[in-house]
Amino acid sequence: MVTVYGMSSSGNCYKVRLLLEQLRSPYHWIEVDTRSGETRSREFLARNANGRVPVLEFEPGQYLAESDAILFYLAEGTAFWPAGRRARAEVLQWLFFEQYSHEPYIAVARYICVMLPAGHERRQELPRLHERGAQALAVMEAHLRQRSCFVDEAYSIADIALYAYTHAAGEGGFDLAPYASIRAWIERVQSQPGFVPMPSVAAP
Amino acid sequence: MVTVYGMSSSGNCYKVRLLLEQLRSPYHWIEVDTRSGETRSREFLARNANGRVPVLEFEPGQYLAESDAILFYLAEGTAFWPAGRRARAEVLQWLFFEQYSHEPYIAVARYICVMLPAGHERRQELPRLHERGAQALAVMEAHLRQRSCFVDEAYSIADIALYAYTHAAGEGGFDLAPYASIRAWIERVQSQPGFVPMPSVAAP
Repeated sequence: MVTVYGMSSSGNCYKVRLLLEQLRSPYHWIEVDTRSGETRSREFLARNANGRVPVLEFEPGQYLAESDAILFYLAEGTAFWPAGRRARAEVLQWLFFEQYSHEPYIAVARYICVMLPAGHERRQELPRLHERGAQALAVMEAHLRQRSCFVDEAYSIADIALYAYTHAAGEGGFDLAPYASIRAWIERVQSQPGFVPMPSVAAP
Repeated sequence: MVTVYGMSSSGNCYKVRLLLEQLRSPYHWIEVDTRSGETRSREFLARNANGRVPVLEFEPGQYLAESDAILFYLAEGTAFWPAGRRARAEVLQWLFFEQYSHEPYIAVARYICVMLPAGHERRQELPRLHERGAQALAVMEAHLRQRSCFVDEAYSIADIALYAYTHAAGEGGFDLAPYASIRAWIERVQSQPGFVPMPSVAAP
């Protein structure tokens, strides 16, 4: 059985939980609070030198970091990872889009709004985060206008990766009302077998 | 034959060129100047709605974006992509590390230093970019201290992806002198069969 080191309220960690639940794959979850400095401890850095959650312990003492690489590891050989070469590359295209053009704006805005004290100086970053995050949402909205899922009409880890922070974008001050195709896709993700919601944020 | 839409002086585009050269795979290169707004044209956005280079046209009219997804597409089935499940996931771990924890600091510092006019207001971002970029370099240095390549002592697309901006970090104001293992690895990459250097930056 694999072990996940994760913070439940983190979207990046939730991706891994959601896939494991949908795979009906048993797992052990060890809660790590990134806000208390746990990810900077010598013990944690031995698991991931980059000091981030989630980390997957896939064999005793063997670790894998980066949420979307973990999704790939768990999904290979299952219906959540496509059989065709082009489709596989397209799933990865969306995973890299998520980590480069989406998460640094939509997840960071949520972090500032719900995990930092009200009036924190980082709130001055919000206008830029909202502008860039809206660009990512516009790309997703256009893509989903004629599609049910991100790649080839088949639910995959691309949908899981993008769902994590998109469905919670409102917590970062984004209004999803103008994005009808995204909202319909969010409902489709939530109706998938084995779906579990993202745990809410614990008070700091 | 595939077509690459890319800007030669971009490290993300150079990754694709380097792999194609090392695969001895013929390709057609179409130069795109991101600074002149070409990537925001309707024609370009039809190839990549996210408006970024590189884009690979792998079949006529079929496009793939995101440099590291393109590396995956081209490398699958070759020696640049591992045969084992764990190793494949570790290569992807380093590709996501590159796009999330490395490129946004090391590539952006280079962009500000060599592509924007001297005295540009974005130079005020440099101290934070240097701090975060140094954290990424420290992770790489520790990893390479006892290894020849990033995954399993075998040169892969993880090395190609990380080489692109790491070897040019000096152009962004980073000093690689303290990173002996990174410097030795850079020399190993440069001695690989089919290696081609990154084109220098054209004057703005």
